[in-house]
Amino acid sequence: MDKASGTSIQSYIGEISGLVGSRLEEFLPGAWNVPERLAKSMQYSLMAGGKRLRPLLVVAAAESLGASREAALPVACAVEMVHTYSLIHDDLPAMDDDDYRRGKLTNHKVFGEAMAILAGDGLLTHAFYNVVQASRQYGISAESVLSIIEELAVYAGPSGMVGGQVADMEGEQGLTDLEQLRYIHEHKTGDLIVFCLKAGGRIASASETQLAALETYGRSIGLAFQIQDDILDLVGDETKLGKKTQSDVKQGKVTYPYFIGLEASRAEVDRLTRSAKDAITEGNIPNPDHLLAIADYLLQRDH
Amino acid sequence: MDKASGTSIQSYIGEISGLVGSRLEEFLPGAWNVPERLAKSMQYSLMAGGKRLRPLLVVAAAESLGASREAALPVACAVEMVHTYSLIHDDLPAMDDDDYRRGKLTNHKVFGEAMAILAGDGLLTHAFYNVVQASRQYGISAESVLSIIEELAVYAGPSGMVGGQVADMEGEQGLTDLEQLRYIHEHKTGDLIVFCLKAGGRIASASETQLAALETYGRSIGLAFQIQDDILDLVGDETKLGKKTQSDVKQGKVTYPYFIGLEASRAEVDRLTRSAKDAITEGNIPNPDHLLAIADYLLQRDH
Repeated sequence: MDKASGTSIQSYIGEISGLVGSRLEEFLPGAWNVPERLAKSMQYSLMAGGKRLRPLLVVAAAESLGASREAALPVACAVEMVHTYSLIHDDLPAMDDDDYRRGKLTNHKVFGEAMAILAGDGLLTHAFYNVVQASRQYGISAESVLSIIEELAVYAGPSGMVGGQVADMEGEQGLTDLEQLRYIHEHKTGDLIVFCLKAGGRIASASETQLAALETYGRSIGLAFQIQDDILDLVGDETKLGKKTQSDVKQGKVTYPYFIGLEASRAEVDRLTRSAKDAITEGNIPNPDHLLAIADYLLQRDH
Repeated sequence: MDKASGTSIQSYIGEISGLVGSRLEEFLPGAWNVPERLAKSMQYSLMAGGKRLRPLLVVAAAESLGASREAALPVACAVEMVHTYSLIHDDLPAMDDDDYRRGKLTNHKVFGEAMAILAGDGLLTHAFYNVVQASRQYGISAESVLSIIEELAVYAGPSGMVGGQVADMEGEQGLTDLEQLRYIHEHKTGDLIVFCLKAGGRIASASETQLAALETYGRSIGLAFQIQDDILDLVGDETKLGKKTQSDVKQGKVTYPYFIGLEASRAEVDRLTRSAKDAITEGNIPNPDHLLAIADYLLQRDH
């Protein structure tokens, strides 16, 4: 952690986030003839100040194996589009019915429900276009890019993120036990994070051992991230979070702290963080520092 | 039109439709661990008795250039998933608010709005998985499959089908002139049809000349199909259509007959059909019969 500790990991995160932000800002060339309000609606949510955690993980995984940052950007932007579409649809009145997200009005509050549905659809579809550009613009092999596309469809699809979202929705109707909650976390949040790590690995032509290490790392920080979210929703600082706390309790959602208590939840976040770092340390990763530091950074986050 | 005329084209269409239907029925292996109601909701709309026009076009294009029917099936099923997702989202209360589609209750009337949104998202995402299987299962080159994926994302995305849907929605608010209507038809329906033809061509390693012929054919029958839809909505038989006629008029939607009259609209469908057939005849297509017969068949349809 020498090179990447403290301020240095924060400046790395800031750098990648800035780079991804400017790529996303120009993702729809004017020549594409997209209806203006649709373009605005997609842009609005893409630029609504997310943490860019998922693009960061794609880039960090690719760089940890010696690939260039540039080559990872098309996939990094794609995954942020997928994440953003899922938030837009989650926030809809028929789903979580949220008026605010990251301290700003949600997409449908600004553009209306129909446009929010279509902006989500547009972002999801365009994400796959973006992934293809990793081959077109940076020469990543067609075989590797096909594997990335296949995994994006699996991890974000009916047996992945969409499945997790359905389970979450059913959970609100009181069906949940701890096993069900783990299913929700694993798929609703975890799967897309695992995708990021594996995709970063594939961009750098990772070996099977390296891919497995990245997958374990992703699976562990994904669950840790979600438990941390549960904890912050319970005891976090509303100003830092940009949203009201205790929304889980108010919506009758069960969480890790609900099942195993606050302290055990914190211990579980610690354990998962260690397990993520162990996988990287033992996984034959040439430049592990940023991935290790990101795991610690996520553990300590307050928003 | 010798071999493929009359009953023979209908039996070809029936064959492909049956094949696609049984593939779609088993598209989600149980082992995938998809939440049960999500799987049911996706299946419900996939199996709700569509015409399977788009899969037919993929298969017919591939076969017209000598590729096998089997090799075209993964993409044929994928495009039906994309089409089905777009119908599910179109029917939502925030969009067209339709209770019936093809004579059956719409997805959200059976499964609720939230599930309908997610079933659409799941189908769209899973479509890309399916396209990849053209390479995995039938050895289509990774390069060709990447091009198919790129075009699916473009033709179904913000500058394609989703853009057309937005323009259609804005059209209902009284913004439409004939040029706008053409934009709507071209993108909302036409783009995905063009995709089908080009994808079928790519499966068969089409030359640039052949791809261009298939594109012109697709563009022409796509617009003809939509004008025919406008005509049928005005003067069609409700029993055959499985839906109420005159819904365009009632919803204040403008149509081709509205702008240029019924007879000129019929003449335009004729002209486009001829232009589609000319492109195929002149496009160096080794087995043109089915494509030619499909163009005629669409011209004569009453639902």
